[in-house]
Amino acid sequence: MGYVTLTTDFGTIDGSQTVLHGVIYAIAPDARVMDLTHAIQPQNIRHAAFVMSKNVFYFPKETVHVVVVDPGVGTERRAIVARIGSQLFVAPDNGVLTPMYIRAEDEGWPLQVYEANRPAFWRTGISDIFHGRDVFAPLGAHLAAGRSLQELGEEIDDAIRIDWPQPIRTPEGVRGTILHIDHFGNAISNIHPHDIAHLGDVHIKLCGAVIEGMVRTFGDSPYDSDTLIALWDSNNYLMISENNGTGGKVIRPRPGDEVFVCSR
Amino acid sequence: MGYVTLTTDFGTIDGSQTVLHGVIYAIAPDARVMDLTHAIQPQNIRHAAFVMSKNVFYFPKETVHVVVVDPGVGTERRAIVARIGSQLFVAPDNGVLTPMYIRAEDEGWPLQVYEANRPAFWRTGISDIFHGRDVFAPLGAHLAAGRSLQELGEEIDDAIRIDWPQPIRTPEGVRGTILHIDHFGNAISNIHPHDIAHLGDVHIKLCGAVIEGMVRTFGDSPYDSDTLIALWDSNNYLMISENNGTGGKVIRPRPGDEVFVCSR
Amino acid sequence: MGYVTLTTDFGTIDGSQTVLHGVIYAIAPDARVMDLTHAIQPQNIRHAAFVMSKNVFYFPKETVHVVVVDPGVGTERRAIVARIGSQLFVAPDNGVLTPMYIRAEDEGWPLQVYEANRPAFWRTGISDIFHGRDVFAPLGAHLAAGRSLQELGEEIDDAIRIDWPQPIRTPEGVRGTILHIDHFGNAISNIHPHDIAHLGDVHIKLCGAVIEGMVRTFGDSPYDSDTLIALWDSNNYLMISENNGTGGKVIRPRPGDEVFVCSR
Repeated sequence: MGYVTLTTDFGTIDGSQTVLHGVIYAIAPDARVMDLTHAIQPQNIRHAAFVMSKNVFYFPKETVHVVVVDPGVGTERRAIVARIGSQLFVAPDNGVLTPMYIRAEDEGWPLQVYEANRPAFWRTGISDIFHGRDVFAPLGAHLAAGRSLQELGEEIDDAIRIDWPQPIRTPEGVRGTILHIDHFGNAISNIHPHDIAHLGDVHIKLCGAVIEGMVRTFGDSPYDSDTLIALWDSNNYLMISENNGTGGKVIRPRPGDEVFVCSR
Repeated sequence: MGYVTLTTDFGTIDGSQTVLHGVIYAIAPDARVMDLTHAIQPQNIRHAAFVMSKNVFYFPKETVHVVVVDPGVGTERRAIVARIGSQLFVAPDNGVLTPMYIRAEDEGWPLQVYEANRPAFWRTGISDIFHGRDVFAPLGAHLAAGRSLQELGEEIDDAIRIDWPQPIRTPEGVRGTILHIDHFGNAISNIHPHDIAHLGDVHIKLCGAVIEGMVRTFGDSPYDSDTLIALWDSNNYLMISENNGTGGKVIRPRPGDEVFVCSR
Repeated sequence: MGYVTLTTDFGTIDGSQTVLHGVIYAIAPDARVMDLTHAIQPQNIRHAAFVMSKNVFYFPKETVHVVVVDPGVGTERRAIVARIGSQLFVAPDNGVLTPMYIRAEDEGWPLQVYEANRPAFWRTGISDIFHGRDVFAPLGAHLAAGRSLQELGEEIDDAIRIDWPQPIRTPEGVRGTILHIDHFGNAISNIHPHDIAHLGDVHIKLCGAVIEGMVRTFGDSPYDSDTLIALWDSNNYLMISENNGTGGKVIRPRPGDEVFVCSR
């Protein structure tokens, strides 16, 4: 049994997301296919990269994560398959796996990327605009059915990466970047506890607002949608939240906004 | 094979709903995980309670229903596991299982609730803000894999209940409450046929509108979105609908609104 | 193992879509149930027909496709089960399978339709307003569990069809119809390459706009949401797109709109 997750910008109204299940089961009848999300913003590689990086390493060993956010569909961009830590990936080579590459390097995990350039493992008669169905889903199915990365293509060492911002120490403290606004309106940054451990007690600045100190969980602050709180998110990244779960009323952070952490 | 359903307020854009699948499969590889819904209104315990009560008893025996609508995450609120009738449940102890408790008592079904207080059955290093991933999903997985409720914790008799309104006889007839507005805009009440059987032919009042009599199905009334009809919903609760399926044009009922049924 | 897909207008907020999974697993424990989509516009038979026709023939042989878009629920309309090519179907007899019937006739595929009129294969005590749960899901489960169409009912030759527009040759070229607006705002027509092969190089008119020539894929035209392009969609139908994936800014096509293709 091979587990497969799907991450796309297809939405869920056209059935295009589920035809991937059908194509996978036709090749790997015993696979177990899951929808990580189909709500990636259209063509937003950075959005897909963040959502995957937050979730993929909780899945069973050798789960195959197929991502289809593919502005370059039908052009010369490569299709890749990869092993990153305990997980397998199928993606267009457009940088969408960047934070997973960085994580593997930080943790010393296995990291191997192959160009999946063998049409024998794609559907015949592929559409120029739907490689999700005709290239990426079949590749994921073959991995789920037990094929090795080596069978599907040639190893490469020049996979494309996008810029992935890291926190920076400044004279006043640490400057980070908001990477994601979640379903509840919480703003999630790229700052880990070790990035600000040297600062002691902190205050946090985002979008003109200042938050004094951090709390452990939502219930440690009065429930009030006008109260801004800062806490560690479920992957230990600094998160700014309007307590309790209705972001966008007090400040309106966006991905790419800068967040500052300073000693009190 | 253990069936598992998930009911959360996570939405489907962050992958947080699907990481629960991954965590469950890592513990119970043969489980079959389904998404009941991830569109519960944020923190709305009553909403989750209604959606579950309407659906859970149609699933195979011993299906495990995991609900994560959890304003108290990371605080002292208990995690519970329960057997209610033929079904199993994993939930925060915040009253979200109330209508299932009531149903079990009405029907004389088994009803056992345990505090799931044994960290051996949780993930190690749990996040203070994501017990869904680190506590509830693992508990559900262990039940799906065949563990008993007794293994996971200690039986309790003081599980929290929320107020769950029941229809009341009045001098004029019966006063009920709207519990839910569904995807089509239909308003579903808490009134069963036996609650109003003594009234004979009825008229129904909701939000200032009066509906004369009930129909059996949508097709028994002219298709016209300005026509209000009353009928029995798929669980035999009194439902008020704007025929045919576009609520909110004539009246705008909300959960908690009162509905009156009187003899004609 | 039987694969089952579900196509409904139930949305995903009430759990009504997932109770179908539960009912199916109670009858066919080893089935594999997928959600093709639950976002069909309420009661929109034509919408469901298009989404199914675009996707169903990519699934494994003998996959059972259950569609519940059913304005006539509880009335005298028939329930049907069908074999169309390599796929099986369960539906209300309201014309929702029309494009699949046409495809089978065009391709010379098997096409058999049965009225599913044997209550032994439904749930007992069926709701007058939820045949999805009480009739169609059980029928799909019995097919997935290996029952034959013949066991479930009587063959018929008068299944209902809805009008399904075909492209028409005109003195100036070919007149087609927009059948669907997808998640990205792309307008998909009913025109196949063979319908316009006689025209040579073409220009395309839709909603007052004129597009000179066709491109092979999105990347063949400058990325610019004000640029209208025409290309073959993933099923080889003429599609008009605002490059790159944000329809509705330049023109606002709707299903039913006419599209004209003429020689340059």
